[in-house]
Amino acid sequence: MATTPSTSPRRLLPLSLGLFQAALLLFFILFVTYDEPSAQAEDASSVANHLYSIFPFFQDIQVMLVVGLGLLLTFLPRYGLSVLTHNFLLLNFSMQWALLLQGLLHRFHHGQVHLGLHSILTAEFAAVTVLISTGAILGRTSPCQLLAMATCEVPIYLTSEWAIVTHLRVLDVGGTITIHVFSCYFGLGVSKALFRAAQQPVHPKQTPTPRSDLMSLVGMLILWVFWPSFVAVLCQPGDAQHRAILNTLLAMSASAVTTVVASSLMERDGKLSPGHLQNGSLAGGVAIGAVADMALGSLSAMICLLGFRFLTPFLVRKLSLQDQCGIHNLHGLPGILGAAASAVAILVVPDVTAGYHLSPIGGNATEGVVMGQFGGRGAGWQALCQAMGLVLAVGGSLLAGLLTGAALRVPCLALPPQRLCFDDSLYFKVQEGPESTGMGGTSEEGALAMKEQV
Amino acid sequence: MATTPSTSPRRLLPLSLGLFQAALLLFFILFVTYDEPSAQAEDASSVANHLYSIFPFFQDIQVMLVVGLGLLLTFLPRYGLSVLTHNFLLLNFSMQWALLLQGLLHRFHHGQVHLGLHSILTAEFAAVTVLISTGAILGRTSPCQLLAMATCEVPIYLTSEWAIVTHLRVLDVGGTITIHVFSCYFGLGVSKALFRAAQQPVHPKQTPTPRSDLMSLVGMLILWVFWPSFVAVLCQPGDAQHRAILNTLLAMSASAVTTVVASSLMERDGKLSPGHLQNGSLAGGVAIGAVADMALGSLSAMICLLGFRFLTPFLVRKLSLQDQCGIHNLHGLPGILGAAASAVAILVVPDVTAGYHLSPIGGNATEGVVMGQFGGRGAGWQALCQAMGLVLAVGGSLLAGLLTGAALRVPCLALPPQRLCFDDSLYFKVQEGPESTGMGGTSEEGALAMKEQV
Amino acid sequence: MATTPSTSPRRLLPLSLGLFQAALLLFFILFVTYDEPSAQAEDASSVANHLYSIFPFFQDIQVMLVVGLGLLLTFLPRYGLSVLTHNFLLLNFSMQWALLLQGLLHRFHHGQVHLGLHSILTAEFAAVTVLISTGAILGRTSPCQLLAMATCEVPIYLTSEWAIVTHLRVLDVGGTITIHVFSCYFGLGVSKALFRAAQQPVHPKQTPTPRSDLMSLVGMLILWVFWPSFVAVLCQPGDAQHRAILNTLLAMSASAVTTVVASSLMERDGKLSPGHLQNGSLAGGVAIGAVADMALGSLSAMICLLGFRFLTPFLVRKLSLQDQCGIHNLHGLPGILGAAASAVAILVVPDVTAGYHLSPIGGNATEGVVMGQFGGRGAGWQALCQAMGLVLAVGGSLLAGLLTGAALRVPCLALPPQRLCFDDSLYFKVQEGPESTGMGGTSEEGALAMKEQV
Repeated sequence: MATTPSTSPRRLLPLSLGLFQAALLLFFILFVTYDEPSAQAEDASSVANHLYSIFPFFQDIQVMLVVGLGLLLTFLPRYGLSVLTHNFLLLNFSMQWALLLQGLLHRFHHGQVHLGLHSILTAEFAAVTVLISTGAILGRTSPCQLLAMATCEVPIYLTSEWAIVTHLRVLDVGGTITIHVFSCYFGLGVSKALFRAAQQPVHPKQTPTPRSDLMSLVGMLILWVFWPSFVAVLCQPGDAQHRAILNTLLAMSASAVTTVVASSLMERDGKLSPGHLQNGSLAGGVAIGAVADMALGSLSAMICLLGFRFLTPFLVRKLSLQDQCGIHNLHGLPGILGAAASAVAILVVPDVTAGYHLSPIGGNATEGVVMGQFGGRGAGWQALCQAMGLVLAVGGSLLAGLLTGAALRVPCLALPPQRLCFDDSLYFKVQEGPESTGMGGTSEEGALAMKEQV
Repeated sequence: MATTPSTSPRRLLPLSLGLFQAALLLFFILFVTYDEPSAQAEDASSVANHLYSIFPFFQDIQVMLVVGLGLLLTFLPRYGLSVLTHNFLLLNFSMQWALLLQGLLHRFHHGQVHLGLHSILTAEFAAVTVLISTGAILGRTSPCQLLAMATCEVPIYLTSEWAIVTHLRVLDVGGTITIHVFSCYFGLGVSKALFRAAQQPVHPKQTPTPRSDLMSLVGMLILWVFWPSFVAVLCQPGDAQHRAILNTLLAMSASAVTTVVASSLMERDGKLSPGHLQNGSLAGGVAIGAVADMALGSLSAMICLLGFRFLTPFLVRKLSLQDQCGIHNLHGLPGILGAAASAVAILVVPDVTAGYHLSPIGGNATEGVVMGQFGGRGAGWQALCQAMGLVLAVGGSLLAGLLTGAALRVPCLALPPQRLCFDDSLYFKVQEGPESTGMGGTSEEGALAMKEQV
Repeated sequence: MATTPSTSPRRLLPLSLGLFQAALLLFFILFVTYDEPSAQAEDASSVANHLYSIFPFFQDIQVMLVVGLGLLLTFLPRYGLSVLTHNFLLLNFSMQWALLLQGLLHRFHHGQVHLGLHSILTAEFAAVTVLISTGAILGRTSPCQLLAMATCEVPIYLTSEWAIVTHLRVLDVGGTITIHVFSCYFGLGVSKALFRAAQQPVHPKQTPTPRSDLMSLVGMLILWVFWPSFVAVLCQPGDAQHRAILNTLLAMSASAVTTVVASSLMERDGKLSPGHLQNGSLAGGVAIGAVADMALGSLSAMICLLGFRFLTPFLVRKLSLQDQCGIHNLHGLPGILGAAASAVAILVVPDVTAGYHLSPIGGNATEGVVMGQFGGRGAGWQALCQAMGLVLAVGGSLLAGLLTGAALRVPCLALPPQRLCFDDSLYFKVQEGPESTGMGGTSEEGALAMKEQV
């Protein structure tokens, strides 16, 4: 959506997106079939049971991504419609794109792609990486750019996930490395290459109001509540899943309390910062890995807040690195912490961590399941693999992000001009109040001001 | 609730509603019993399993109707308290009324009405039709009128549902015909008969503000997330339910992407309309029927937006037909599309559609289940029945709606005067800011008032 | 967080809270282990089934407490960030504190504390009492005082729950007596002792705006939807749980309708009060006990609204009793009603009520399960025990609350001064518009208007 009067970029988004949708429909009609129907009656009951065991988790995750994450990003007071819509559009586009790629790459058996709730779930995880990366460049980019980024990021994520989980056999419960660390450094790479050395001044519309902070806080609370489902959904049913839920619950709870402590210690007057709460309380869920518990939750909240206080200003000053939502503090630092902790845990308590991924029933093991002592590996070798996975995730995603960001500078993708950033009116038909005074639909204070003026 | 100084209409609502509630309580005390308790211990476990399989779906639907639909309607900036409350009240009243009627009509065995989660669920579906129909006349009607409409609509729905599903044996997964098409034309009939030829001018309080659009968008997202539960809850457990969930997910996802494409193609400057997003993204869920998939989701989003762009203005101009929330575009057009698609599917792939409703376990088939090839019918005959069901739903509901709407003109039901429409202060004790000027906490109108005052 | 320039109280909160968190982590590391892993493969499947049966209920309750209750309290228009954050912090702190105490007191077997979803759930119930009690003193207290209150209330609740449920073997489905009545009178005791005779004047920031009422209404709707999960989660799986869900659903529905009736009958002009809706609709869920049904739901909504109308002003006038959110009307009166109803029900239909708590499978009975006819007691004796439980809950909690409230007057806990009550800016770094005019909280448009004015 361009800001120039020329209409061609304005038309680029709907036309290319429409074309994609049409191609996808064709692909689905031609190639996709459902999971083979259960031939025997006794199978039907087990299909039903499997559905009931995964569907509530799936719905929780949908609420997190569509409602929770959307609201979390509405801290930008005049950009609420845009963040909700872009988040929603990117989720759907990326999920469909990942489904298509997965279908083409992994599942091309007998000319048919089999579809099930499980494949939609893994496609959704690919979409999550896009949503996280978006946080670095939110508000200063056009929807065309975001869609172009998603188009690049999804196949790169699938490759990276294959290399790290399937090839290196890294244990990565909750996606600490493959989702959080990967998407964070990808987003930072995009941001760096897209905005280059130009240090972006603070935009007046960027400052949250108490009301937008409130909406964002509600979004955080929704994410906080459902995070255990996100971590546990792909664990083996039974003990491992139960433990993943408990671990996440306790880590999130420790994060919440630690965030309040650390945020009020950081300010001279002891006041809390809404931004700290919105991020720190979730840090515990990011660091969750094979052996997470309360201590890790507490530590990651601390590291997240320290990042906001010291690292972000430093990165802006030294590297002119733009990170709009602070994804480095919420996803990068706690992700690295969690990855390091899992490597240590493998060395210290190999039995627990190895058992973590073992299928208790036997047969239907998910990807990345290891047999025996890390599938025949020793603990030391496995810990090394964890470290290699982390390095691969950071390095690979940074590089890919830099390349993607450079590509996003293509003029036809319509980077919005500085003065129109963070404003819904660029992308939405919004009814303003009395347009001359610029007073918006948003507040009674306008009226008060009017009165005092009189 | 009247606007005249006479207090009698003011008292009509609570008194009649209180009387209804008392009568209902009496009925419950005298006649209702619970589903017979399971005599054997092994039965108890199956009761528990059945509960766990239906309860999460039920809660999802409750969230949709109470929170999601309520928020979706708050696009009217000064009418938020009213829409949330009227939606909540109508849901509860209609559900209780449907439970009562169902109890009296269908389940009067041995002098006792048996109650279970399943009967509450079907009563809730009856309430859904009332909530949808309300969309046509929202903001210009009194709560008394809405309750009177609900009183008429619930028994008419139950009759229509009996005729279409039980008698004609129409396949209607997700309630495309019996819920969406029925309630849409009922609501339009009520609107036509209630407002007659009087073309309603656009009310200043009717225009959404960016904030009310944001709340409405959140409501849409909640509905969007939980829609698969609504479609799948009454499907046969196992493959059919799994497929219904997948179909709905993909159709909703295609709707979301298509809506963005179509909405920005429709405007010369490529901007999105919040109203389009709020409706188009959900259209895919309405059209879902026996064989829905992505193509249908995409198509129904398109038809919904075209309806907003061309049909609604046409109907207003030619028929003076008032449709406040555009229910014809969200429920009517996609519903007809879905019904037509199901008839075509039955002709083209009879095996799939027939199997769609087959109980995989055998015994406990829900209403409307067909055996073998559509219960002995051929595919052609079944497709004809689908068409007849659609015609019956449209014609019957329009006629019934017109009669109901004429009845709502009774003066004691207190149609609010034009200037007091779309305003919470007619029905709520709201604390205004400075009372003398009538400036509200909520809005830019305060500023307008101030300005005009100056 | 003090208002005096001295920094020591400002530091008290984070330091003591941080110390608590550190101690808790140490305790967890040293003593806590997970529920013993299932040795046999067949056990694993039953662990998984148990998890799937309790986890959706658990998530519903988390949404209620974190999102629903938080939003319900945002009726204070300038105190939204604080209520959401305090609610969130208190929930986490109290839950951890209860886990610690439970671990130390009840479960110290073999030097290890076993942890499972069930123990977290009971700890969460302890936290609920704190959240309810907070309602009496909301907005006029510092976070330090709230945490100090939580520190006292949790062990007192655990003792009271032990005495009433384990010792007196009172039937208390849904926590009517042990949670609602207890926490209400505890909170009122704290309020009385903390504010003493000083009648608090109505604070200007205390008046809800239409917008804050809307957010609060959304919170009520979320609580309303998920309340059945709260009541049913600890019931025996099978018939008892099914019946608890149905009972709660019907009682809540009756409450909702009755609230609208009663609220509009109470006002001369028939208008509804948002405060009535926010409380009355939930009253049915509080009164739910062993034999609740629609009549009880209707009655408790009525009693709740009568409390708001007549009792609260009376208590303020005669006893100078401050009850900010009206917890006496929502939790106290319906709780007493529910307790009385359960005693009557035990006398009238002993079979039903005795069977209510019986484990259908046998083995894994929860606490408070009775065998046969109330574990060998006659119905009369059991009804007497119910009455004694109620008296104990009211008397004990009032006394404990008064003592706790007196302790909260310690200066270092920093009671905020009157003029800074109900304002986020005391505890949060919020970006105000132009600070000199004190224009608020909500928007940049005020600032724009101001600027143009100059």
